[in-house]
Amino acid sequence: MADLVQQARDGQPRAVARLISLVEDRSPALREVSAALSPWVGSAHIVGVTGSPGVGKSTSTSALVAALRAQGKRVGVLAVDPTSPFSGGALLGDRVRMQDHALDEGVYIRSMASRGHLGGLSATAPQALRVLDAAGCDVVLVETVGVGQSEVEVAGLADTTLVLLAPGMGDGIQAAKAGILEIGDVFVVNKADRDGAAATRRELRSVISMTDRGDGAWKPPILLTTATTGEGVAEVVDEILAHRAHLEESGELRRRRLARTRREIEALALTEVRSRFSLSGDARLDTLAEQVLAGDSDPFAAADTLVESL
Amino acid sequence: MADLVQQARDGQPRAVARLISLVEDRSPALREVSAALSPWVGSAHIVGVTGSPGVGKSTSTSALVAALRAQGKRVGVLAVDPTSPFSGGALLGDRVRMQDHALDEGVYIRSMASRGHLGGLSATAPQALRVLDAAGCDVVLVETVGVGQSEVEVAGLADTTLVLLAPGMGDGIQAAKAGILEIGDVFVVNKADRDGAAATRRELRSVISMTDRGDGAWKPPILLTTATTGEGVAEVVDEILAHRAHLEESGELRRRRLARTRREIEALALTEVRSRFSLSGDARLDTLAEQVLAGDSDPFAAADTLVESL
Repeated sequence: MADLVQQARDGQPRAVARLISLVEDRSPALREVSAALSPWVGSAHIVGVTGSPGVGKSTSTSALVAALRAQGKRVGVLAVDPTSPFSGGALLGDRVRMQDHALDEGVYIRSMASRGHLGGLSATAPQALRVLDAAGCDVVLVETVGVGQSEVEVAGLADTTLVLLAPGMGDGIQAAKAGILEIGDVFVVNKADRDGAAATRRELRSVISMTDRGDGAWKPPILLTTATTGEGVAEVVDEILAHRAHLEESGELRRRRLARTRREIEALALTEVRSRFSLSGDARLDTLAEQVLAGDSDPFAAADTLVESL
Repeated sequence: MADLVQQARDGQPRAVARLISLVEDRSPALREVSAALSPWVGSAHIVGVTGSPGVGKSTSTSALVAALRAQGKRVGVLAVDPTSPFSGGALLGDRVRMQDHALDEGVYIRSMASRGHLGGLSATAPQALRVLDAAGCDVVLVETVGVGQSEVEVAGLADTTLVLLAPGMGDGIQAAKAGILEIGDVFVVNKADRDGAAATRRELRSVISMTDRGDGAWKPPILLTTATTGEGVAEVVDEILAHRAHLEESGELRRRRLARTRREIEALALTEVRSRFSLSGDARLDTLAEQVLAGDSDPFAAADTLVESL
């Protein structure tokens, strides 16, 4: 395992891919992988990229990769599709995405499906991020399809959260509803060559100005891009780096990462507890459920019994 | 507490409301409430009502209440809004909804917000359902705003799941995507007075015919209603009762309820474990997270330490 981690650190794409597969398949070696990675984790800047379907997330991610590469950064991309039932890395998607950057050794791209995974995004993505981080990526982009909860989850994983919108999608109001205004560190109105981009930016600005983020807080910029041509994308990279600097200076980077690590540990602990319930307690859980259905017990008493059995 | 439960069983609305409040507020008396209810639970038929915003869920629920009351059934309504941040029962909503049935002592109506509640819908709704069940409701309608996960959650709570659609909303494809076709026991195309209702039904029928539910399985009917006039609603009630009969004859009712009770017990046990992590382990969790961030430990090892500390 130490060899595999060393190969990944030496920049061998196959070693990186193998480590992510071990993580994604919940291999029994997962703990060993996690332990072997731990000395090498912490330097990558994690950028969450989210937004409703149709705003141009994939194109924007690809354009961001190009802009970051132009600055000589090593880049990882983790594309998470919470609506896809396919597990184990959506290979076709990987290949399609790879086209622009296929021959570039400074880029790792990986698709992940989270639906059906116990704990969803939060269960496997952090481990995959640790792999990309340890493999020497300076920046890792986590792209997720914006459907409700996943947006908030991706913000929980990221140091900087990029929220993408597009003109004329009624996104301003939808965004407010979904609570993504609170989670965005950098807002991007993509498809800026279309009518209404300036209006969307104005609307967004007035809504954001109402959210009180406190004194000395980061003021989220709102940028216009046309990802298909790359127009405005370099400025997005600049703002990401500016946000990173702000996070470091304010101590917020450490706070975010501490909170994230706490959540990750807690989630893993709960998963472990849950598997103990199932492994040793399937028959017991059935018995308890039968007692509740018969009116001889109630769910709380049954739950207490289950916890005490740990 | 036994008195309060007895008053609820005697049909006193205030006692029912008080019990649901205790449940919803996570009162320390929650365990006592749950235990006191247990002998009286199990006779209500739980009907989940779900569908995208705009299909007419509230109107349909109200029309179903009227149709069930016409058959002399006692009816409970639990309206769950997973997008609402307001907890403790949305009182205004209750009052608006109550208008049609305000003077009817055979109907209990209650709104619940689930956002922000630990564990969401699954955490409090089952307890509220137990209250309405014990209070002597023959049928409880659980209405939820159809946003992703909540649809699947409501199906997990229900004996019979009603999926509402409306013509011309592109619902057919959206439904397939969200996986609600698999969870529906009865499909209703509401707003049948509008153009395209028959087409929506046809489209739905062809998609449903492709889902293999196995031999002897229930074949979900697709009904047309105009909830505003009540047109077709009596037939929906008939199909709900037919589905109930099918569930009983096939043994599926018991299987569903056993699975539901297992999930409920497990969820409560995990909540308890989680609160133990926080109560006794907040400082420990911080220390563990610091160790991981410093590269001295990894999330899995930290999680193991946390579990062992239970």
